Amino acid sequence: MAQNTVGKTSVTLLGLGAMGTALARTWLAAGHPLTVWNRTPARSAPLAAEGAVVAGSAAAAVAANTLVVVCLMDDASVEETLSGADLTGKDVVNLTTGTPGEARARAAWAGGRGARYLDGGIMAVPPMIGTPGSGGYVFYSGSRELFERHRETLAVPAGTTWAGEDAGGAALHDVALLSAMYGMFAGAAHAFALIRKSDVDPAAFAPHLADWLGAMAPSVHQTAAQLRSGDYTRDVVSNLAMQVAGTPTFLRTAEEQGVSPELLTPYFALMRRRLAEGSGEEDLTGVIDLLAR
Amino acid sequence: MAQNTVGKTSVTLLGLGAMGTALARTWLAAGHPLTVWNRTPARSAPLAAEGAVVAGSAAAAVAANTLVVVCLMDDASVEETLSGADLTGKDVVNLTTGTPGEARARAAWAGGRGARYLDGGIMAVPPMIGTPGSGGYVFYSGSRELFERHRETLAVPAGTTWAGEDAGGAALHDVALLSAMYGMFAGAAHAFALIRKSDVDPAAFAPHLADWLGAMAPSVHQTAAQLRSGDYTRDVVSNLAMQVAGTPTFLRTAEEQGVSPELLTPYFALMRRRLAEGSGEEDLTGVIDLLAR
Ligand SMILES: NC(=O)c1ccc[n+]([C@@H]2O[C@H](COP(=O)([O-])OP(=O)(O)OC[C@H]3O[C@@H](n4cnc5c(N)ncnc54)[C@H](OP(=O)(O)O)[C@@H]3O)[C@@H](O)[C@H]2O)c1
Ligand SMILES: NC(=O)c1ccc[n+]([C@@H]2O[C@H](COP(=O)([O-])OP(=O)(O)OC[C@H]3O[C@@H](n4cnc5c(N)ncnc54)[C@H](OP(=O)(O)O)[C@@H]3O)[C@@H](O)[C@H]2O)c1
Repeated sequence: MAQNTVGKTSVTLLGLGAMGTALARTWLAAGHPLTVWNRTPARSAPLAAEGAVVAGSAAAAVAANTLVVVCLMDDASVEETLSGADLTGKDVVNLTTGTPGEARARAAWAGGRGARYLDGGIMAVPPMIGTPGSGGYVFYSGSRELFERHRETLAVPAGTTWAGEDAGGAALHDVALLSAMYGMFAGAAHAFALIRKSDVDPAAFAPHLADWLGAMAPSVHQTAAQLRSGDYTRDVVSNLAMQVAGTPTFLRTAEEQGVSPELLTPYFALMRRRLAEGSGEEDLTGVIDLLAR
Repeated sequence: MAQNTVGKTSVTLLGLGAMGTALARTWLAAGHPLTVWNRTPARSAPLAAEGAVVAGSAAAAVAANTLVVVCLMDDASVEETLSGADLTGKDVVNLTTGTPGEARARAAWAGGRGARYLDGGIMAVPPMIGTPGSGGYVFYSGSRELFERHRETLAVPAGTTWAGEDAGGAALHDVALLSAMYGMFAGAAHAFALIRKSDVDPAAFAPHLADWLGAMAPSVHQTAAQLRSGDYTRDVVSNLAMQVAGTPTFLRTAEEQGVSPELLTPYFALMRRRLAEGSGEEDLTGVIDLLAR
């Protein structure tokens, strides 16, 4: 490490799993003095060789620096790990995945112990950490002051995106985007299942699928505009009635190809329910009303 | 119509719904002599004013030209419409949406009546027809000879993409891509439902969602490579065991936000089933094996 550390914020990092280790390496490479702790000490050894200070306990690691980044398994492990430490005056940045409610409760808990609190939701996998062009980034929410103060340091491993003063905002954005991704994966799984018993090569099909999904993704802007205005008939091209009329073709195709329709039918069922409410002229947006009770 | 029609293939078009009318206009604008027929005659009037010849019956429209394009409601309406016409020597291009099995049966039916047959699956909505930059296109499958012969004419309304000699190929590609799109829409609906009871503005959230879905769409290339090789552990970043371990956070978040998890749970259930088969080291690709029985 021939890096200049003058003026670089010192960082404490709790948790050296796949993600924590990736984060640690970027701060070391950028010349930030780094103190680490991990429950299983063996995982600290490679980082020690790269210049990290290894603390003997979570409490000692917290005591070492003002900025304390936490990247553990889940919220329960965060409570367990931080409960023996003195958090007074600390800037706690929690990058552990959790629910919005857990983040809000953890923010209050930290505040009660004299700490400022910023929650983070990492939109990246470890190989994307420290690779600026990868598109990976972290949502942050909670203390805006803390976010601004440490933004440069936090930007070392990945892009930083503000998600609001509600401490639950980062988790909400994180979970919402990943939920949508699982929907897309479910749709892609159904599509690949459909072509399985045909002579279509998955590798020849994939470019069509990637392009089509990429081309359809921006339709969420129209959905958002409809949600905002409350007018779900705005700019409709294929209305709900027409789309429901088309669903039997999808189900018959699944049957012909020997594919279970279980990943399609729940959405189709909601489309039909919304149509039955007399919303045939609307876009698909009304389905959202049926989900959020 | 001051267009030069010399050397332009004459086209017969059966069906002047929203899509048929959009197709018709592009051929007229490009100077192709066009004969049209529609069950409800009133729909032909505007096209007659734009230069189309209006036939008095489907049989007369078919008799007028070698190239016969069909864009009707469904396969049953195609049979009903064409059954009174002499198809001998005709080049039938069927752009009516249907299942792969219907396309194959219709190809055999047309062949039995002396026609060549090309099936099409339109990946566009009417406003995209005739607008080259829109990304809209049509999958074609069946007679490659017919496809090559009329490719220039077929390229007038939208891009042309070959989907194989199996007449069902275009429908299979069409339904597979649209099925995947519905999965993505289902995921996006869940995401928008999650933010509904928060202070997150849907219009501020939409760009994150569009970018994230766009960034994740190319992962289907890896899925295809895994399907081809049969090795679902290839290049895995987050394995199935890790992803299943993360699902409770998604379900708890839905619960916190008052959102029904019904669009997420079917995919999560398949992930768990696959994990239970001992596939924890795999990517999510194994779910496809559970769908295609
Ligand atoms: N990996 C990803 O792709 C990814 C992407 C986005 C977000 N994240 C999030 O980042 C966080 C860390 O993920 P990861 O991939 O690094 O996970 P990981 O490789 O499984 O590591 C888990 C870490 O948590 C520690 N831990 C677990 N239970 C603990 C407890 N009760 N007390 C103290 N430490 C405990 C582990 O310590 P030991 O070494 O002692 O077991 C280890 O350091 C998670 O919240 C995850 O959701 C991960
Ligand atoms: N619109 C889209 O966004 C879109 C996108 C991709 C593919 N497509 C496909 O394109 C095809 C046509 O769609 P469209 O949007 O034009 O539908 P549409 O506006 O509902 O028009 C349906 C057409 O089918 C005719 N028809 C229905 N039943 C008939 C019967 N028994 N005999 C004769 N004609 C009959 C109708 O004639 P009448 O005027 O007499 O009712 C009309 O011309 C469908 O297969 C659709 O799936 C449409």
